[in-house]
Amino acid sequence: MAGDVTTDEFNPERWVWGTSAKTNRFLHVMVSVRDIQASIRFYVDILGMKQLDAVFDFPERRVTGVVLGYDGYEAGGCIELIQYWDEERFKEGGSQGWHFALGVTDIEDMVSRLDSAGIEFVVRPSVLISGGPKLSFFKDPDGYVVELIQTRRESSPGS
Amino acid sequence: MAGDVTTDEFNPERWVWGTSAKTNRFLHVMVSVRDIQASIRFYVDILGMKQLDAVFDFPERRVTGVVLGYDGYEAGGCIELIQYWDEERFKEGGSQGWHFALGVTDIEDMVSRLDSAGIEFVVRPSVLISGGPKLSFFKDPDGYVVELIQTRRESSPGS
Repeated sequence: MAGDVTTDEFNPERWVWGTSAKTNRFLHVMVSVRDIQASIRFYVDILGMKQLDAVFDFPERRVTGVVLGYDGYEAGGCIELIQYWDEERFKEGGSQGWHFALGVTDIEDMVSRLDSAGIEFVVRPSVLISGGPKLSFFKDPDGYVVELIQTRRESSPGS
Repeated sequence: MAGDVTTDEFNPERWVWGTSAKTNRFLHVMVSVRDIQASIRFYVDILGMKQLDAVFDFPERRVTGVVLGYDGYEAGGCIELIQYWDEERFKEGGSQGWHFALGVTDIEDMVSRLDSAGIEFVVRPSVLISGGPKLSFFKDPDGYVVELIQTRRESSPGS
């Protein structure tokens, strides 16, 4: 059926960080916020960032989010605001409160290198959003959570 | 005397984030680390970032730091590792643990806008490193600390 979407089906709208990247790069900082509309007003109206897309709901994760930046997605240096639907998750702080994301051209290769170094993973590489790139989260030597996002897309599953 | 350096004296080596910026942009994420050499090995050897300059000591602030990135300073998206000399400052976490930095072409104008919005400042705009740009730190609506760095430099004090 047309409505059926598997997580492996390529959806270009979900590959916002760019599919033609040739090198690894910094993508964004995620910060969890209490009131996403208030934070959008702050970062857009006062700090002068642009809202790069509509506010999105992600029911599977019980979050609402938006990406802001002075430039577009591919320029990197974006701010991803995330409001958890469950207020107590905001209060947890720590790994829930913020992280930064790196775009990598080959997530499996990077994960192999991290595995060899004995790095702890929070989320192994997986397609968390239907049709989107593989994502992964690990902890750096001090316990800071770092997100990896597959950017380059050389082969299209099913194409 | 040649050795005298005032905080107003322009030192191009301290304006690493670029003096010709025409637009505001994201610059870096600072994360405080327990062992800066271990973290450098991690981010360089495993994640493949470049070390953009020598490790620096900043005795006035009792920190040692280094800036890493997949690109250069001006590309933005750098990671600034900071090791506090006083171990308990690491444990404080929160605003000591991390922040992100935005480069602004006119820091006084941005601060005026933040003041008009009643934003709380941690550090008002000031030259914290001799010969460098003005820096400022404020708290966003959720209390996250954000750093502002003056980038554009149109007039040279004393020149």
